[in-house]
Formats: sequence, C-alpha cells, structure tokens
Amino acid sequence: MPTQDIETLIKQVSRLPGLGPRSAQRVVLALIQKKDSLLSPLMKSMETAVKSVNSCGVCGNFDSSDPCNICSDSRRDHSTICVVEDVSDLWALERCAFFRGVYHVTGGLLSPVKGIRPEDINIPNLISRASSENVKEVIMALSATIDGQTTAHYLAEHLQGISVSISGIAQGVPVGGEINYLDDGTLSEALRSRRPFLG
Amino acid sequence: MPTQDIETLIKQVSRLPGLGPRSAQRVVLALIQKKDSLLSPLMKSMETAVKSVNSCGVCGNFDSSDPCNICSDSRRDHSTICVVEDVSDLWALERCAFFRGVYHVTGGLLSPVKGIRPEDINIPNLISRASSENVKEVIMALSATIDGQTTAHYLAEHLQGISVSISGIAQGVPVGGEINYLDDGTLSEALRSRRPFLG
Repeated sequence: MPTQDIETLIKQVSRLPGLGPRSAQRVVLALIQKKDSLLSPLMKSMETAVKSVNSCGVCGNFDSSDPCNICSDSRRDHSTICVVEDVSDLWALERCAFFRGVYHVTGGLLSPVKGIRPEDINIPNLISRASSENVKEVIMALSATIDGQTTAHYLAEHLQGISVSISGIAQGVPVGGEINYLDDGTLSEALRSRRPFLG
Repeated sequence: MPTQDIETLIKQVSRLPGLGPRSAQRVVLALIQKKDSLLSPLMKSMETAVKSVNSCGVCGNFDSSDPCNICSDSRRDHSTICVVEDVSDLWALERCAFFRGVYHVTGGLLSPVKGIRPEDINIPNLISRASSENVKEVIMALSATIDGQTTAHYLAEHLQGISVSISGIAQGVPVGGEINYLDDGTLSEALRSRRPFLG
C-alpha cells in the first residue's frame, strides 16, 4: 500500500481534470521516481505561476500584468469585444491570429440545470463594460451547446438597450469537414445559414 | 497566448505520463483557476512527498522509512521474495492481500532492444540479496511480455547456483474471463498449464 503522503498526493492529482485514480497513481509514481528531473521543475513552475499569474481585472484573461497584455495593447481594437467562456478559448482564438479586438472571459456558462446565474460568472462586468466604454461590437464566441447558446441569448437581450451591434461566430461545416460524417444539427444549421456562393 | 510562466508550467505538466499538450493545458487552467482549492494543496502534498518519500534500500519500495514498512515488518515471511517490475505492481499485489512475503522492485525490465542491461536496473541487488539472506523462494511476478519474460529468465539463470526455489506466477484464463474473447497465447498457455480438476 502507498504511504499516507503518497496516498494524499495521488488524491490531489486525481482531482485534476482528465485524471482518474489510476492515471493519478501513474503520474505520482513517475514524479517520485524522477524527483530531480520531473517533480522539482514542476514544483518550481507552479510556484512561479502562483506568484506571477493573475486574472485580468478587465477581461478575465490570465497574465502576469493587470490589465493583461491584450487589454493594455493600444494597437488592438478596443471597440470590439469577443466574449469567450474560458481562457483556453481565448488562447485558441489568439492562435489563429485573425481577431485583433479585445476579449471578455465569462469564466463559465449560464445553466439553469446546474444553477449557474449571471452573477456567478463574469457577466455583469461585461454589461457595464459594453455600456461605459466606446464599444461598437460584441461578438459571441461561445460554445454551440445549450448552455453556450443560453448565455449568448441572455447577453444579447441585456445588451440590446446599449448601442452596440451584437454578432455570433458562424455555425456550419468545419474546414476539412466531410458532409457524410456531420451530424444533422450542423448540416441543418449550415443549410439554414447558406450564403451567396460568389461574393 | 499563454504567458511565459504558464507556457513553462504547461510544458512541465505535459511531461507527466498520460498527459499531452492539450490535456496539460486543461490541467494548468484548472490549477490557475482554482489556486486555493487545487494548486496550493497539490503543491503542499508534493513538498511533503519530496521530503518524506524515499526508495527502500533493500527492496526498492517507496516509503517514508528505510527499510520500508514491509521490509521491517517481522510478521512477514522474509524467506520469500516476490520480484516485481514497479512499485505500482507491488501496490496491486498488496491490495489483494494474499502474499505475506517481502518484495524486490526491479524498477524496469531487461531489454536488448532498448539497451537496458542488468546493471541498469535493481537486479544485481536481488542476486546478492537472494544469496546472502535466508531466502527459500523467489517468485517472479513480472509482466507476461517479452521483456518481462526475458528478465524472469535472466534472473532464474543467475539464481540457479543459489539454493532457492524459483517460481513464476501462473498464466491462464483471468477470473471472469470468457474463453471466447481470450487471445490465442493465453488460451494455449492455459491449456498447456492445465491441472487436475479435483484437488
């Protein structure tokens, strides 16, 4: 049997997303076996991250500065706010390097089922941000799930009083997607949102 | 894009077994989002483990004491050594609570392909241990893979000069196993090792 200390560590590791008791045990064994090459560097990086990384008070992005490097970048278009659920979504959009506006990370989605209300996530902030600043457009880049669309609709309703245009990222066939393998929902949506082919 | 500190942490986490760049990113985001409830307890457990957990000088088990609690337990049968590849195998055998002897963790398997020689793993130690102590039986509980069986054969050969009996755990149909779904190797082995039904 593992000792108490190892048992505790396995329990902590198994609480990480995507890890169960078995994979946590494997991770912990690797950590103990490679204390110098694996565990120590990991602990150092964690300590650095704990100290340096904070949530941006404006948009909710993670950065070492507050406001974050995106919010404080004057070359970016501060009149366009892209609403995302999570920092990982922000990173994904930054990777494709198409969007040059600023972000707003909600940190979750509204869910009547799970009891998540607007004040539980970073939504009231967005509404005041869209009202007070010189914002022209709010783009909803939320997941195409029920909760994602619920949140988008809630936001759209509450932003209607303010003079901003509200848009949502397009739904349809993904690039490289084969019609044959797509689900009915995506296909219907792609047909419904069809557009002129030339132009 | 994640900051340098986050990027470093993601890289460190992705080096853990079973985690890739994407799952590491997910883990790191969860860690940063839940600094107090997830990251801090994990760091504390890691620090405790770094300080307290060490490899047992006798058998290679991980424990806070050296010799480990199994090697120093006088109620256990020190004349029977069970050879396992990894501490996780030792834990699995301890979970089933059948074996009351002591262990020897090789920490790897011989592999001509990967260039792993006897002196690279905890094997010379076992041979001297089996010779010097009052050992009666050495049980090979190594994986039924090519490397596992190579290691078992190497050990058996080098232990032949010493007056210990050498055994290997049985191969055959696993409990609950359906004949229909078993591979040819297991079925042949189960047939070859058949035993009298009554008794």
